[in-house]
This record gives sequence, structure tokens and C-alpha cells, in this order.
Amino acid sequence: MAIKNSSAQLPQELDQKEIHSFLLKISTAARAITLKYFRKTVNVENKEQTSFDPVTVADREAENAIRDLIAQYFPDHNIFGEEWEPKKTNSAFSWIIDPIDGTRAFISGLPVWGTLAALCYEGRPIAGLMSQPHIGEDFIGFAGNTTLHRGDEKSTLSTSKVKALNEATMFTTSPRIFLNENSLAHYDKLEANMRLARYGLDCYGYAMVAAGHGELVVEEGLKDVDIAAMVPIVEGAGGIVTTWSGKPVTDGGQVIAAANPNIHEAALEI
Amino acid sequence: MAIKNSSAQLPQELDQKEIHSFLLKISTAARAITLKYFRKTVNVENKEQTSFDPVTVADREAENAIRDLIAQYFPDHNIFGEEWEPKKTNSAFSWIIDPIDGTRAFISGLPVWGTLAALCYEGRPIAGLMSQPHIGEDFIGFAGNTTLHRGDEKSTLSTSKVKALNEATMFTTSPRIFLNENSLAHYDKLEANMRLARYGLDCYGYAMVAAGHGELVVEEGLKDVDIAAMVPIVEGAGGIVTTWSGKPVTDGGQVIAAANPNIHEAALEI
Repeated sequence: MAIKNSSAQLPQELDQKEIHSFLLKISTAARAITLKYFRKTVNVENKEQTSFDPVTVADREAENAIRDLIAQYFPDHNIFGEEWEPKKTNSAFSWIIDPIDGTRAFISGLPVWGTLAALCYEGRPIAGLMSQPHIGEDFIGFAGNTTLHRGDEKSTLSTSKVKALNEATMFTTSPRIFLNENSLAHYDKLEANMRLARYGLDCYGYAMVAAGHGELVVEEGLKDVDIAAMVPIVEGAGGIVTTWSGKPVTDGGQVIAAANPNIHEAALEI
Repeated sequence: MAIKNSSAQLPQELDQKEIHSFLLKISTAARAITLKYFRKTVNVENKEQTSFDPVTVADREAENAIRDLIAQYFPDHNIFGEEWEPKKTNSAFSWIIDPIDGTRAFISGLPVWGTLAALCYEGRPIAGLMSQPHIGEDFIGFAGNTTLHRGDEKSTLSTSKVKALNEATMFTTSPRIFLNENSLAHYDKLEANMRLARYGLDCYGYAMVAAGHGELVVEEGLKDVDIAAMVPIVEGAGGIVTTWSGKPVTDGGQVIAAANPNIHEAALEI
């Protein structure tokens, strides 16, 4: 599904508290399944033979559980997931879900994968959940309001105020995700300008930018399910998410998430 | 301090249960300090101007706390840490400690750093602790016996039985740690032979090999404090830790940790 624009206010017909509670319900339902399989032996299938893209049983079962929950609470909403065919309705509301973003981390025992769910209104992501159940963290974003839940603790997140690239930290899944020499050259030039670069993060890097622990995520080859939930989470904490050319993210592709306008502009220039 | 050999049995004068409990005490003492600073604003100093090697206040305070604990329980043991001068005695026992291995992950909010402590007898690491306090995991290794503690749960770890590189997962801190073109070429050849490579792990990669979630760690430029604790943890779970040329790790340098002899041999060949 093409997501039209950056995150925006909820339409009046939706109550933010209700959606917030519902996102925590999604987290709980998904956790019951994903943790049953995390760090256990799972059957890993290859989606495509050319590039390694593992799908686990956990991914499919968790997507089913999330779809059931949405169908129960919001029966008229559209649902787009990674594992099954879309459910299409006439509603202006759509859910974009990825039960396990970071399947490579998942099958390697590393707790930096996440369960992602975004609620979109007329194509714009207006609410997002990123849940890391092994650690027990739920990141929930709305326009102007991103929170981190852990157990009974709840904190409001703000992005970093660091303005210069050479004082900033960048996250990316791997320098080897860049698809051609041109994008790798751009990435390398950017990395050379940063204070620090960290790899292997998937959705967890966006969550760290929202939480103020890093300033930049740069990635390529993303799908809509990989990025939709992260837009309200990063933007709700004060950040900016666009394509490499500064346009709203639509279907994923080349994505940049920045802590503030200065970092965003400096990174786009490179 | 040069560590002479791979992990071995405790000498008769030491009780494994006592050391096990003491390692958990170290974890608790270090956690009280490291979590006070983790995901908070910290003053990051540069050890060397040429390469970014952050040292945090947490690192120094936690090393002091661990040193105090060792001095209290084992006043005659040697202590080697990263932040302060060694304490040298005439004992055959030495502690090698690194309160925050993975300082880059630490300052980026990523919970894949660890508190490391190794007990050595005549230069051989005979017991090791790797603690990740944000997640609440303690990995404790002795010859033939590695356990993972989390809250009240305790499990015995075994390395993976996967024997072929093309079915195996490799962990490394970054493909950019390799110091010259020759080691990078070796690393690249190895990565091309693997099923999967994950970056950004530091000590957490060794813990995942011990826990059976991956088969190989390959790193270069390690110090004794980076690797001493991981030797009993990986070997206690059935793995092998050597240099790239198959020799016992002494001062760190080029290190390979493998889940089993087949993986070790196949990786060494490359």
C-alpha cells in the first residue's frame, strides 16, 4: 500500500487513548506468539532464493493474531501485512503490519527486531507501534507524542538536539544493503562525516532516534511495512522521516530518518 | 595481561558454586552503576583522537565497584582492568575485567554491550561472566558448563550443531574493524561463504554463539579484556575460541570463536 505523507493528527472520529490501548493489545497478542519461537529452533524458509529473506512460523502466526484483533475491534478497516493477502474495505483507515521486522536478528537470537503496526488514515500513518518483547519495550507514536512503555514505566520521548553530523550517530542495517555503487558511495561519504555508525538494527535504529540516543537512520530497499509504523514514532518525538530526496516516504525505498531539521538537511546535502 | 591458554578446570582450592555466586555479585554491583548512566546523557571522552573509543563515567565507576568487590572477597588476587592500573600480587589467580564492553553500543542506547569479568588461573581463563543488565541477562561460563540467568530463570547453554558454513550465522562488530586489506579480504571471503552475517555485536555475539543462536564470531584488534571472559562462556557451552591461525588466544588480536570443530576448521581454512 502506498503511504501518502508524513504522520498527521488523528481524525476527530478516533480517540487517541483508545488507539494507544489498542496498540498495547496488539503488542501483547504478538508477544505471546513471537516469544514462543524466539531463541527456539524454528523452520526458516527462503522467500526468494537470490537474497536471504527468512520467514518464520512466528511471523505468520503473529500476523494472524494481529489481523484477528483488528478484525474484532475495527472490522471495517483495511489490513495490509507482509505474509498474507491484503484485506480491502471501503474505509479510509488502514493497518500496515509487520509482525517481525528484523527476521535476521530474530533467527540469530538478537533482541533488536520488532513487531510493527501502523494505523493510516487516507494513506497517512497517524499512529505507530514498535514492540521489542524480549526486552519488554513498546514504542508508541502519534503526531507530537511518542511514548516508551516498559513494564509499569512510561516515558515521553524526544529526539536529540545534536545539530552537527560530526557529533551525531547513524544507524543502518548494514553498509551492504546499499543496492548499487552510487548509493554506497553516498552512504560512505555520509558515514565518513558522522561521529559514529552502528549496524544491524532494522526498526530498532528508528526507535533509538525517537528516544534521542542517535540522530540518523539511512536505509535503502525498504518496503511500506518496514517504515509505516516508524514514521509516527520518529515524528511524534520531534524527528523527520523522508526519502533521500526529501520527499514523503510512500512505498519505502530509500529512507532517511533524522532527529531534527539540521541533521536532516546536512544528511540530505550529502 | 597475557592469557595463556583456553579455559580449563578450576583448581581444587576453588569452589565452582562460590565463584558462580561471586560472578552474580559482580553483575549486581556493576548493574547498579551502568544502568544509572545507560540511555542518560553521559560525558563521552576520546581515549585516542585517531579512532573513536568512548570512555564513559559509567565505565570507570563500574570498574571501581568491581575492583572493590574482588578486593573484599579475594584480597590476594591480581586485578587487570581497562580503566585503571593493574593490581599485581603473587597469587596465581587474576581477574580481567571490562565493565562496559561495547561502549559504542552503550552510548547509542543499544542493549548489546556487556559487563565482562574473567577469573584466570596461571594465565588461563577458568571462569567468565558476561552481563547485559538492561535486558537482565547473565551468561556465566566454566569448563563444560555455561549457564544463562535471567531473573529467576536459569538455563544450561549448548552451542549449535550446524556444521556447514553455508548454513551458519557469523557475528562481528563491523566489517570495517578489519585493519588491512589482507584481513578484510579474508573476512569478505568468509562472509560470502556464510548463510548470514550480523554486525554491531561486540561481546553479545560470543554470548549468542554460546547460546546456540549463531556459529561463528570473527574479530580483529581485540584486547585481553575483550576476550578473556568469553573464552569460558563459549568453551563451556561446547565451542572453541582461538586466534585466526588456530592458536590459543593470548592477548586478543585476531580472534575466532566457533560453535563446534567443523565450523572452526572450515573457517580457519578460509
